[in-house]
Amino acid sequence: MKKQAIGFIDSGVGGLTVVKEAMRQLPNESIYYVGDTARCPYGPRPEDQVRKFTWEMTHFLLDKDIKMLVIACNTATAAALKDIKKKLAIPVIGVILPGSRAAIKATHTNRIGVIGTAGTVKSNQYKKMIRSKDTKALVTSLACPKFVPLVESNEYSSAIAKKVVAETLRPLKNEGLDTLILGCTHYPLLRPIIQNTMGDSVTLIDSGAETVSEVSTILDYFNLAVDSQNKEKAERNFYTTGSTQMFHAIASEWLQLEDLTVEHITLG
Amino acid sequence: MKKQAIGFIDSGVGGLTVVKEAMRQLPNESIYYVGDTARCPYGPRPEDQVRKFTWEMTHFLLDKDIKMLVIACNTATAAALKDIKKKLAIPVIGVILPGSRAAIKATHTNRIGVIGTAGTVKSNQYKKMIRSKDTKALVTSLACPKFVPLVESNEYSSAIAKKVVAETLRPLKNEGLDTLILGCTHYPLLRPIIQNTMGDSVTLIDSGAETVSEVSTILDYFNLAVDSQNKEKAERNFYTTGSTQMFHAIASEWLQLEDLTVEHITLG
Repeated sequence: MKKQAIGFIDSGVGGLTVVKEAMRQLPNESIYYVGDTARCPYGPRPEDQVRKFTWEMTHFLLDKDIKMLVIACNTATAAALKDIKKKLAIPVIGVILPGSRAAIKATHTNRIGVIGTAGTVKSNQYKKMIRSKDTKALVTSLACPKFVPLVESNEYSSAIAKKVVAETLRPLKNEGLDTLILGCTHYPLLRPIIQNTMGDSVTLIDSGAETVSEVSTILDYFNLAVDSQNKEKAERNFYTTGSTQMFHAIASEWLQLEDLTVEHITLG
Repeated sequence: MKKQAIGFIDSGVGGLTVVKEAMRQLPNESIYYVGDTARCPYGPRPEDQVRKFTWEMTHFLLDKDIKMLVIACNTATAAALKDIKKKLAIPVIGVILPGSRAAIKATHTNRIGVIGTAGTVKSNQYKKMIRSKDTKALVTSLACPKFVPLVESNEYSSAIAKKVVAETLRPLKNEGLDTLILGCTHYPLLRPIIQNTMGDSVTLIDSGAETVSEVSTILDYFNLAVDSQNKEKAERNFYTTGSTQMFHAIASEWLQLEDLTVEHITLG
């Protein structure tokens, strides 16, 4: 029997941080990934436009017969998860709930920070989700609109990245946070710099990594997980609406995949 | 709207280790618990008898309109999860899959041990589950039939417990394990002694605690989680087929609940 893949969608390369974790935790699963790099960043766009783009990526992957969809982008999750989940017959999950849950589990002081794109922060979904589970939690949110472009331009370890991160996060430094949600799947690429800026006492929550544990739970719950007895090799297919060269550079370094191929696609 | 509870069932008090974690991670959720203490231990019983007893606890809780069922007992999970999950309209989860998943995530050497009751070890379900996800994993199982009676008789911190645990686990000491699954929900009460016996280099996996994270995922996935805006107090109801006094002594100490009431029930 042919293995069906898990579909991952993101505004660009950010969702690769989720894929990296999926390759580690679910080595037998095939993965199809779409990064809408040509229209990245999603953060500053109106919500209904983000929803439209997210549906376009979804339809592209549905045509490839995926068995589950992971909206590996916080902005797209905030804008479109509810709608897409309601309309698809396959399981669909986003990254906001797993990140919220992990933060509640991690905090000791109930002071949780969230950083994300303008769209994610404006949607206020992390705060609503966390407060709906734990009324004692105090949630401080901050939009970091400069972070995604740093990552998409492969500048995420540069000196300029250090400067931008330090300046952007300054307002959070005196909030007494013990937990900070990386509420954008691009941000784990900036993780060392963010950790250094916030200090070791702050636990960083990688919403994408947390999401993979939930993908595994849902696959098992619906008896959709691949059995390792299935000897067919797991496929990893990457599609981008933007430059395949730039995507390849970031993906092959981040995922440490040697034979990675990236296909250019057009959406919309 | 009245809150619906999550139902937990176990052969005795062991599932309280799962409840403790549920109270921490899901403070707003109501919990109904059945411990079949009168017929504990389940470990040495034939599989179809365990399945029958598990169905009896399940029917008792279905009459109380639970919204989800957690089979918080490894022996009962091995014997009855598949059947019960197939037949109920509400979500049902057991403890074996979450424990397996957590062990794969935790191990670095791929040498995983499992301790459990005779029934759980005989079913071989941990090994099958782990190997279906990760063919590189080597799984060593050991039945520990003396552990449950130690816990049920409130002897779990005694000198005799130390001796029994050390003697029982001796065959595992030279297996080079880096991860050991506590494949019985009673065993976390013996955790300090087990950790001391196995040494600090072995990561102990509490299958029950892992299960609660999955309960949370499933509740959210099906939009069944309680919203903290619902001001009704979370209920915690405990039912046992055995001595309410003994159950109360263990439960109130383990859960640190002051106003805990235990009701005696008859099943079968």
